Amino acid sequence: MNKEKPIILITNDDGYQAKGLSSLIEFVKPLGRVLVVASDSQRSGQSSAITSSQPVRAHHVVKDDDYTLYICSGTPVDCIKLAFDKLCDRKPDLILSGINHGSNTSISILYSGTMGAALEGAVYGIPAIGFSFCNMSKDADFSPLKKYVQSMVTRALNQEMPDDICLNVNFPVGVIKGIRICKQAKGHWTEEFLHRKDPSGRSYYWLSGFFINKELENEETDEWAVANGYISIVPCKVDLTAYEAFPRLKDWATVTKENL
Amino acid sequence: MNKEKPIILITNDDGYQAKGLSSLIEFVKPLGRVLVVASDSQRSGQSSAITSSQPVRAHHVVKDDDYTLYICSGTPVDCIKLAFDKLCDRKPDLILSGINHGSNTSISILYSGTMGAALEGAVYGIPAIGFSFCNMSKDADFSPLKKYVQSMVTRALNQEMPDDICLNVNFPVGVIKGIRICKQAKGHWTEEFLHRKDPSGRSYYWLSGFFINKELENEETDEWAVANGYISIVPCKVDLTAYEAFPRLKDWATVTKENL
Repeated sequence: MNKEKPIILITNDDGYQAKGLSSLIEFVKPLGRVLVVASDSQRSGQSSAITSSQPVRAHHVVKDDDYTLYICSGTPVDCIKLAFDKLCDRKPDLILSGINHGSNTSISILYSGTMGAALEGAVYGIPAIGFSFCNMSKDADFSPLKKYVQSMVTRALNQEMPDDICLNVNFPVGVIKGIRICKQAKGHWTEEFLHRKDPSGRSYYWLSGFFINKELENEETDEWAVANGYISIVPCKVDLTAYEAFPRLKDWATVTKENL
Repeated sequence: MNKEKPIILITNDDGYQAKGLSSLIEFVKPLGRVLVVASDSQRSGQSSAITSSQPVRAHHVVKDDDYTLYICSGTPVDCIKLAFDKLCDRKPDLILSGINHGSNTSISILYSGTMGAALEGAVYGIPAIGFSFCNMSKDADFSPLKKYVQSMVTRALNQEMPDDICLNVNFPVGVIKGIRICKQAKGHWTEEFLHRKDPSGRSYYWLSGFFINKELENEETDEWAVANGYISIVPCKVDLTAYEAFPRLKDWATVTKENL
């Protein structure tokens, strides 16, 4: 094994057969030893879910000096955790996730398996980048993204990433005008379920709906960037504490057994 | 229907039969109209996962003026989203999740289905509280928590919660000394998988491991609070942007097609 090269750990949430994953592998193979641990099937919307009610399996389908591919029965976060704990011979230098088929801007970061996996990097203090392409087609052409991905990966391997964060990178469709460092746009989904009836007349619901961007005009957001031809980079952290809310909650801490 | 009473929407991640859920329902029934949409089975570790690859079903098992219970085939977040979109006759006044059997302090917020559901409140601008009890027993005695839960729910219904956040509330085991407003402790899990072999000799892995608290002495953390007999309240937000990382990323935005 070539111990000199950096170890790049890769997963995704579209499953091991996705074109976005194979594109990412191809892009970064020249930059290090690549260990891929990918889910055996589509795991979109899996967030940071972990599998505790049943065991997880993984088996390698490719194994050579500089490229190993495991297929795993777990979620994207399971893939990363299993790699850390059992499949990797040392701590990886970089975690990559994606390239996701479809955007993960704004609030999508909460639900995204791609970003769930990238956030593990921030938990464990390993640089991590989640890549998403605002094109949901399974045959999307990822080649225009190649040089941007390679440039970002090289920077991350050169320790140019801030500590204890991961990056949420979204690529726009069409001509790329440049890169913007962004904040996560405020927004939410609405009319989220389609109501249908099965042949027995029983109701079922399909997750659907559309996104409402609450910061449509804000040029600092990731939504604005990708809508206007820019690659968005949002640095993300795993401390969800809303420190600014502490003063308003002061009274909540005055409750005791005696004054309840 | 009594339209005057506040609507309290409840879910959990231990499934509709959990004692923590029935305790929570019992505690808050006197405070409003209660709509419960709970998963049909254990959904621990489901984070903010959503179900998009198959439809979701829900059917009510109790339906009267002030208390309705639906059992849902989806994740905790699916339960909340389906309630908003299809099961609730108006926007709920408060979302509650739990009471979880087991703690959700520190980084557990990332993986917790209980907190995934509560974070939906912060997404949609509805006050939300996730309750967890640091006792994993399915027969845990929740009765000492009753008055604290009722006090917090009353405050939340009186609009004493800051906007656009949810609360992560953890109850310690044993005598309760008081309440502390806390930050999420830094930490991570380690040695996360047990390796076993099945009767055919094939490997499988069980999620396990133990937690490493990286802020053991920090009295401002939720971990310290529950370890020392206090109820911890962590206000949580859904904007994961690490604004403090922007300066270090400035150079990343200088890349263009021409200088790649």
